[in-house]
Amino acid sequence: MSKESDFAQGGLRIAIIGVGLIAGSLGMAWRRAGVAREIIGIDAEPVLTDAVRLGAVDRAGTMAEAFSACDVVVLGAPVRAIIEQARSHGPLARAGLVVTDVGSTKEAIVRMWEAHLPEGASFVGGHPLFGREVSGVANAAADLPHGVPYVLTPGGRATPEAVAVITRLAEAAGAVPRVMTPAEHDARLAVSSHLPQMVATALAAAALAADEQLTGVLDLTAGGFRDTTRIAGSPASLWVDIFMTNPAAVRAALALFRTQLDALENALEWGDPEAIEQVFDRANEARRRLT
Amino acid sequence: MSKESDFAQGGLRIAIIGVGLIAGSLGMAWRRAGVAREIIGIDAEPVLTDAVRLGAVDRAGTMAEAFSACDVVVLGAPVRAIIEQARSHGPLARAGLVVTDVGSTKEAIVRMWEAHLPEGASFVGGHPLFGREVSGVANAAADLPHGVPYVLTPGGRATPEAVAVITRLAEAAGAVPRVMTPAEHDARLAVSSHLPQMVATALAAAALAADEQLTGVLDLTAGGFRDTTRIAGSPASLWVDIFMTNPAAVRAALALFRTQLDALENALEWGDPEAIEQVFDRANEARRRLT
Repeated sequence: MSKESDFAQGGLRIAIIGVGLIAGSLGMAWRRAGVAREIIGIDAEPVLTDAVRLGAVDRAGTMAEAFSACDVVVLGAPVRAIIEQARSHGPLARAGLVVTDVGSTKEAIVRMWEAHLPEGASFVGGHPLFGREVSGVANAAADLPHGVPYVLTPGGRATPEAVAVITRLAEAAGAVPRVMTPAEHDARLAVSSHLPQMVATALAAAALAADEQLTGVLDLTAGGFRDTTRIAGSPASLWVDIFMTNPAAVRAALALFRTQLDALENALEWGDPEAIEQVFDRANEARRRLT
Repeated sequence: MSKESDFAQGGLRIAIIGVGLIAGSLGMAWRRAGVAREIIGIDAEPVLTDAVRLGAVDRAGTMAEAFSACDVVVLGAPVRAIIEQARSHGPLARAGLVVTDVGSTKEAIVRMWEAHLPEGASFVGGHPLFGREVSGVANAAADLPHGVPYVLTPGGRATPEAVAVITRLAEAAGAVPRVMTPAEHDARLAVSSHLPQMVATALAAAALAADEQLTGVLDLTAGGFRDTTRIAGSPASLWVDIFMTNPAAVRAALALFRTQLDALENALEWGDPEAIEQVFDRANEARRRLT
């Protein structure tokens, strides 16, 4: 029986390796949608017990079971761990297995998994665009994937059927699948996600430095500062992986940002309100396009 | 009868000149708290009719009435208009009048009003730290000032009684008064408010530029981008005034920000995860101090 018809009958066996905020939320959404015969989880304790208790997976499983007996493996660990798992576990994949991931960069992951999966197994990179400034399955929820873009970046050897299965899993979670190349993903997300993180982190760190010099800076914040730095509470560990696996695109995004910031600073230096207005007009337009 | 006892008996006559989001919200809060005998509004139409209908002021008044017959004048226009009003209307102030404002920078405003008010009138600069990305009295609300810091920057000739009256008005609106010098205000807010606006605006403008080059960037945003650029929807007109009246402090704040951003970019270039973590640790600490 094909995976497509397995899907239609709620018959997929899914393994989630690394049941954190993202993959845990997908597990909850898939269980609610009834698309899987069974979802097994592989993680350290006490995460795994929590994942079962919270309904992200049906039961604990093993890596061997995931790669030999499931239809779909979802890699939910941080980016560098996903890359390392290619070498150690990729070769174990049975023919017909579809491996996907939820990592925030795609080129390095897809390249490594394509290199280590045997003939007949498919890799379809995935990046559902939701997240929170807190992590872990305790903060996962079935509704988080609802309505968000879910980028799919199939490897060169992925079968059309494999892409169709992950597409339908994205839809079953309530998300909107968008297929593109890993390079397209990484260039776009460098601007829409990695750059905002760098900027918010630098802004919050600068405010701490100012507070140490001037005192009272962090007592005088309003909603603007809080919103602009909200993601600056994110843990370094996740973001180090993301930046280190997408350095060229992130630096290109930083160059675009510095061009705009320089325009504002030069306008300030020369007392040129029209030049400030031009950058604001462009920023206002970007915001209008979001809605 | 002193203004302090007028205050206790709900007997102040207040004029609001420029009934926008900020001063309009204060008017609503003061009317609800019952601190004023009457609040008159001075603005263009149809703003003034809206302000009366929405309960920001009791009735329409005139500039002559504000400066000759009221106890407190609240200047609610944009920063440059407040500065221009010093020359045209400051000399009209009767003895005993307390003039305050709600502008986002303080040094230029306090200096100009101190220079143009006659003997016996006091200027107490004010900056209640609330706002929204939308403006106008239609978006004002009595609850917006609740719990926010309300910076007071008395002019050198302001009487202690004048400072006490504005302090109690800040409290009556539900805000938390904080007295400091205009220079202290402008240096702190350059970091906690003006810098975030510059950064958010540059980020949104950079994303638009990227979207034009790569396409699809603005379709692939998640909560991080939306939060970080929320204030990038703010109108240029307000912010041009703020930047142009606080250029030195804003440039000092930009220098602090660039130091942190450079540290992140250098770490990316040299592949140094520990250096990235150091900036994240400082940013995480800044966020913890907000709560």
